[in-house]
This record gives sequence, structure tokens and C-alpha cells, in this order.
Amino acid sequence: MSNKGKITPSILPGFMELLPNDQLAFNKMLNSIRESFELCGFVPLDTPVIEKAEILMAKGGEETERQTYSFKKGDNDLALRFDLTVPFARYVSQRMNELSFPFKRYQIGKVFRGERPQKGRFREFYQCDIDIVDRDNLSLAYDAEILSVTYTTFERLSIGGFLIKINNRKLLAGFIEEFGLSKKLSKILREIDKKDKTGEDSVKKELDSIGCTFEQIDKLMDYLNLNGTSDKILKALKSYDIKNETFQTGLNEMEELTKYLGYMNIPASCWKIDLSIARGLDYYTGTVFETVLKEYPEFGSVCGGGRYDNLAEYFTDQKLPGVGVSIGLTRLFDQLNENGLIKNDEAATSRVAVVTLGDYSEIAYGLVRNLRNNNIASEVLIAGTGLKKKLSMISKKGIRFAAILGENEIKNKVITVKDMDSGKQEEIYFENIVNFIKGA
Amino acid sequence: MSNKGKITPSILPGFMELLPNDQLAFNKMLNSIRESFELCGFVPLDTPVIEKAEILMAKGGEETERQTYSFKKGDNDLALRFDLTVPFARYVSQRMNELSFPFKRYQIGKVFRGERPQKGRFREFYQCDIDIVDRDNLSLAYDAEILSVTYTTFERLSIGGFLIKINNRKLLAGFIEEFGLSKKLSKILREIDKKDKTGEDSVKKELDSIGCTFEQIDKLMDYLNLNGTSDKILKALKSYDIKNETFQTGLNEMEELTKYLGYMNIPASCWKIDLSIARGLDYYTGTVFETVLKEYPEFGSVCGGGRYDNLAEYFTDQKLPGVGVSIGLTRLFDQLNENGLIKNDEAATSRVAVVTLGDYSEIAYGLVRNLRNNNIASEVLIAGTGLKKKLSMISKKGIRFAAILGENEIKNKVITVKDMDSGKQEEIYFENIVNFIKGA
Repeated sequence: MSNKGKITPSILPGFMELLPNDQLAFNKMLNSIRESFELCGFVPLDTPVIEKAEILMAKGGEETERQTYSFKKGDNDLALRFDLTVPFARYVSQRMNELSFPFKRYQIGKVFRGERPQKGRFREFYQCDIDIVDRDNLSLAYDAEILSVTYTTFERLSIGGFLIKINNRKLLAGFIEEFGLSKKLSKILREIDKKDKTGEDSVKKELDSIGCTFEQIDKLMDYLNLNGTSDKILKALKSYDIKNETFQTGLNEMEELTKYLGYMNIPASCWKIDLSIARGLDYYTGTVFETVLKEYPEFGSVCGGGRYDNLAEYFTDQKLPGVGVSIGLTRLFDQLNENGLIKNDEAATSRVAVVTLGDYSEIAYGLVRNLRNNNIASEVLIAGTGLKKKLSMISKKGIRFAAILGENEIKNKVITVKDMDSGKQEEIYFENIVNFIKGA
Repeated sequence: MSNKGKITPSILPGFMELLPNDQLAFNKMLNSIRESFELCGFVPLDTPVIEKAEILMAKGGEETERQTYSFKKGDNDLALRFDLTVPFARYVSQRMNELSFPFKRYQIGKVFRGERPQKGRFREFYQCDIDIVDRDNLSLAYDAEILSVTYTTFERLSIGGFLIKINNRKLLAGFIEEFGLSKKLSKILREIDKKDKTGEDSVKKELDSIGCTFEQIDKLMDYLNLNGTSDKILKALKSYDIKNETFQTGLNEMEELTKYLGYMNIPASCWKIDLSIARGLDYYTGTVFETVLKEYPEFGSVCGGGRYDNLAEYFTDQKLPGVGVSIGLTRLFDQLNENGLIKNDEAATSRVAVVTLGDYSEIAYGLVRNLRNNNIASEVLIAGTGLKKKLSMISKKGIRFAAILGENEIKNKVITVKDMDSGKQEEIYFENIVNFIKGA
């Protein structure tokens, strides 16, 4: 086709846009996540995509500012949200007196990061976040509750086995404090965080260049690689006989957390203590965790979260401890789809497509009205000529039933219903069609 | 509270952000609309919020460019979508060979317009759009189908009586052509469009200043005010004896459309022909319609749509006729809420909150796991001291059931379930709790 003088239709690199079959599969995942969040008592929140730049940049950080889409409109400095946490912090501080605490909210929405696009990285992507915050204090039971929701969510997503790896920042910090290396804590955490990606040798080299001794590095590596049941790891942690308060608090918190995980009946096969989990973000202060898919460790962490002492320090003096988790849905969907793990053979929402052979529009539309009134998604297919072509269209779209109206059917007051899955067809009386479809 | 050195938490004017009870009510409306669209066989689409400026500005127009949020990132000129129609046009042209036609899609998402904020106008708002497009030709049955979906959607929203006012641009254009005023058509349409807002006298004055004669203005006003059943109006239109092709085509289309509306069993009380409906947007070429709430005519049009000859002329030579409708959900919700028409007495998704009097966490969390496994949204309420305070929190959140576990309950293996609506409470055996809640 010539396309003279036209603008070539395209989107920017790093933005996901799907065809109907993939979009339906994506929405199924998104709806499943939302249902899990609501099942666990979280209430929805929807914050603006555009906020004041000073709000979104409150915490600062060169990396954040470089990645953020920001612009002026009139005299206002505006920006697009780059996560759902900063808007949540702003919201809670702003509406403090109108919310009841502990406040359990979920938010599912797009966030924007102007990164250099690369495979698996998106500039616009969905985050699915839950957080629980309270004023002044928040029980450790909520850390377990967040893990329980994470378990419920991945269980219901049905994307295969998963493992939630749990740690406590205080354990790591206390262990490093014991070496007298507290000042280098963030740098060391950042290196540890890379272990799964770059390998142990690379991390050792980096720790060496930071100024850790070989003995310290070896001890740290032994510590990070401690493996086994949670009971075994907790016993090993006690045997270290580290007396500093940070480590001891971390140990107590981890013990209490595992107690609650037991109460909540989270199967032992779905979680473990992993002392090497650090989480890159600075604001975590206690429990931290990541989730990996057992059969696809190469996907890396498909969700992560943890406990923070103070959500909104840039906006309010009120201390707001919280705990939360975030699922990066766009990337997860992309990875699953790349690996052929997404069932995407439907390109329609209709369960029934009505086809007429002759001028039976009035009956066809009446039939569809009846089906829709009974919550059966349906439509009249008027495109295509000839039954064969029409049936092929219905099959291609993945619509389950073709309801055929021809001269014979009209005479006998029946519809020929063809099950496109089995190929079987039978004649159904007009008045029985709803029950037939519902029962199928 | 002192707030020294903090950034005052706030959002920009013209952006909607809700408290949990309102957000739940908003989401209920949004989900209802989505379900209606899917019930009628429309498939979801999700396009990027950010697109190339040249794509979004393809059609141009000073007003559009002024209102659009546009910015640079690196060397790229970017913009935020200001509607869902231009991205849809771009999508269909881009993926033409991968889609099956007629293509019925819905999209629900935020759009952005940097207007001066005023009451009832938002800079960021949800549009809920459906469109049906095909290559080269599209049956008028689809115009009726769009009206049928509009009917289904408002019927299921349960926000009171509504009236879909239907017209055809060709009728208006043909009538004006008869006066030899075709060159002034857009101007005249724009004035007619304002009639409901500014009143008939104001429109007459404007038409006079455009250059219509008094006789023409009177005839036009008589025409616009034609009232009655669709049969009566169709008869009146025929009696005008206007021979130009535009008018005759419009009349035929309107007759055919009303025939299909009858087939689709749309109650006569929910729609009427209104010859004064013009719709501001230039691209409509046939059927046009608006919907008003019968009890709240002052809300103005709560949704509008129509038929266009060519969706994507800026992107492709392929002719793509279509028909669609758009609901401005943010504004509609705001208007309903302002008038106290939104039921917003729930601030929780949980149906059951479990309360312990004593250290029965293990049993409480086990109970919640069991409820959740059976798709009953629930949570353990560990905040608040004393039963009275806890029950008051549950009541305030609008959670239906409090499940109370105290010494007595543990001893007898029962839960005291209090129905917060009726105030009634009874003891339920552990193993019967799921059935009890499901049956309530």
C-alpha cells in the first residue's frame, strides 16, 4: 500500500503495547493480582500520573532525577511518577486525619522511567504495590501479612513454583558492624545485592577494593551462603554469638516473623531465609525479601519488598513505619511471554457468536440481548460471507460457541450451537439457550 | 504538628484523588463499565500514556496543541495522550495486518489536558471508549450495536433513568445545504451544539451574526425542536420534501438505525431522535448521539459518540470507517458524588475482620487463611485495644462481619460472629464459618 504524505504509525522504544490475545492474557494476570490484594483486605488507591516535581523529587538522588520525565506547563514544574511509593507517602501525609490506621492500601498503575531502553527494561510499566503503614509503631505481624499476601498472589497467578527469599537488613548490618565496617554498609550491601547477577568472585573483588580484608570477605561469604531450614539458619545465627544490638534485634525480628509465617500456614516449600538478600533501595530497615520463580531463576526477582521505619519523612514529622511489596507486572509478563508461558489463544471476550444464514437479524439480535441479560458475553457476527468463513473467524478469535440461525432453525425454533473446542454441534430450543451455555 | 523543613504534601489543581470509600465506589463504576463492554464482545486495548508528539499532533489544531502536555526527553519530542481515539487510530494503522476486522475494542484509561482548571473540568481524567472499525465499509447495524452497548452500560451502572439522544449529521448538513449555507456548516453546527447551554435566543443571535436570515433561523429552530416518537419525527422529516442527497442519505440511515434499535430491544423510554444533537468534534459524518440523565439534565451530556468515515487518514491510505462512544468517567463520578448519589459508606474490601481477645493469633490467622482460601476477603484486626474500640473500627470501615475469638470461644471451638449491619451475633463452629459467611 502506498502511504504518501502519511505519518508512519509507531510507538517509542521501551513501551509495551500488545495485540488483543496478549492484552487479554495480561489483563487476566492484572485482575488476578487485584483480586488477591482485595481478598486480603487491601483498599485501592489511585494517585495522579502527573505531580509537582518538588513532591516527586523530594528525596532527590541524581539517578532518580535523570530518569524522571519532568517538564514545565505554564509556570509549574511537573513530573510523571517513577514509582508508587513517593505518591503514597505524599497521600498518607496529606490525608492523615481522614485515614484510619493501620492503613492497608494497594495501587496498580503505570510508572515512568526514562531509562535507556534495553531488553526486558521498560520506560512505562505497571507496578502492583501493597503497603501497610501505621503511626509510630507497626507490629511485625504485618511483615508476615505482606509475605502472606505475596504467597496468595503468586499461588493464584498459577505461573508455577515460586520461592520467597527472606532476610532482615539488621542481621546483615549487625554482622558487618561486628567487623567495624558500618561506615561502608551501603557500599557493601550494594555489592552483595549483585551477587546473583555477577557471581561470587566478582563480589569478592569489589569488596576487596572497598577495603574489606580477605578474612572478613571469607567470613561474610560463609555467612551469606548459610543454607537450610529456617530453624537451622536461626540456630546458626545464634551460634555466631554476635552481641551488638543491631544483630540481636534482627535475630529477634526474624524469629518472630517465622513464627507468624507458621501461623499463616504459608507452605515451607514457598519461602526460605536467605541471608544474602539485601535489596538495593536504601530505605529498607528490617525485613527484606524477593521472590523468584523456581523453574526460571534467570528471570531474577519478580517481586520485592520490605519494612521501612519512616515512609514520609520529607512531608511530615509524624513517624510512619510501614511494610510493603511491589510486583513489576510488565516485565514479568514480558518474560513469561518470551518463554511461551502465557496462554494467549483467545482474542475475544465473547463466549457466543451468533451467525445468520439469511435475513434473520431481528432474531439474532434478540437472542444476543437475551444472552447478555443473562451475563453471557455474546455478539452477532455480521462480517464474512458463507458459513465456513464465519466459523473460521470465530475459531480464530477463540470464541467458544457458534450459534447458527438458518432457514431450518427458524422453522423449528431452534439454534444450532457448535462447540468450537470439541467440534460437536446440537440443536437447542430458543428458550433453552441460556441454560445450555451456562451448563457447558 | 510542626512541619519544619518539610515539603507540604499536595497535588496539582484539576487532578482527582479520592479517599478509600470514594475510590471503592469509583472502582465499582469503572468495573461495571468494563464488564458491560466485555459482555458485548469488545476486547481490551492498552496504549502508552506517552507517545511521539508527531503522532498525537498528527491532526493538529491550535486548541489541541495548547492543551497537550508535551516535552522533550533527550532528542525526542514526546506528549501525553489527550484522548484515546488518536492512539487507537495509530494502533489500527500500525497493526492492520495482525488484527481481525471488524475490530471491536474498548479502552479505559487516563487522558491528559492542560486546561485551565475549573469546577467539573479535570486535567487528568478517565475515558471509557469503545469503537468498532472495519476496512472500507461498516454496516449501520454497528451504529445500533454501539447504542445497544451504551444502553447496556448505563442500565447496569444503576445511576437512574437516562436518555440517549440520537441524530445524524447528514440530516443537519442536508437541511442547511437546502438553504445554500453549506460553507458555514461547521460554524452553524458549533452554535447549535451550544443550544442546551446558552439557550435558544443566544443561538439565534449568533446565527444572525454568522449571516443566516431570520427566515432561515426560524425554519432551523422549528426543525431542531421537532419532538415526538421516532415514527413521528421520521414522518415529519419526509414531509419536508428535501431532495438533496445528503439529507436523503441521512434519512435512510436514520430509518435503518431505528429498525436495528427495535431488533435489539432497547426500550423506547431510553432513546429518542433529537435533531438538535450536533456534537462538537468535526470528524463525525453520520450517526451522532449523546446521553443525559433524566433526573439530572444539568449534568449535560454524560457520554457521546458517533460514526466517522475514516479513522486514520493521517497514518494510512486504507479507509477505516468506524463508530464509537466515549464516557468521561471522572467527571460523571464527580457530578454524581457532588449530588450525594454515590453510595460510599464502605472503606474496606474485607467482608470479615477477625478480632482476638487474648493471645489467639495462631487460630485467628488460620481462620483467615481458611476464609481466603474460600474466596472470602478477610483480615486479622490487631490494632485497637478493647473489644469496643475494635468493633467501632470495623463498623467505621464498613466491614460486614466481626469474628470474635475469646477464651470462651476457644474452649468451645466456636467463633462469635457479629453482623455489623443487623447487630445480631451468634456462635459458629470453626468448621462452619465459611458456609455461614457465604450464606449470609
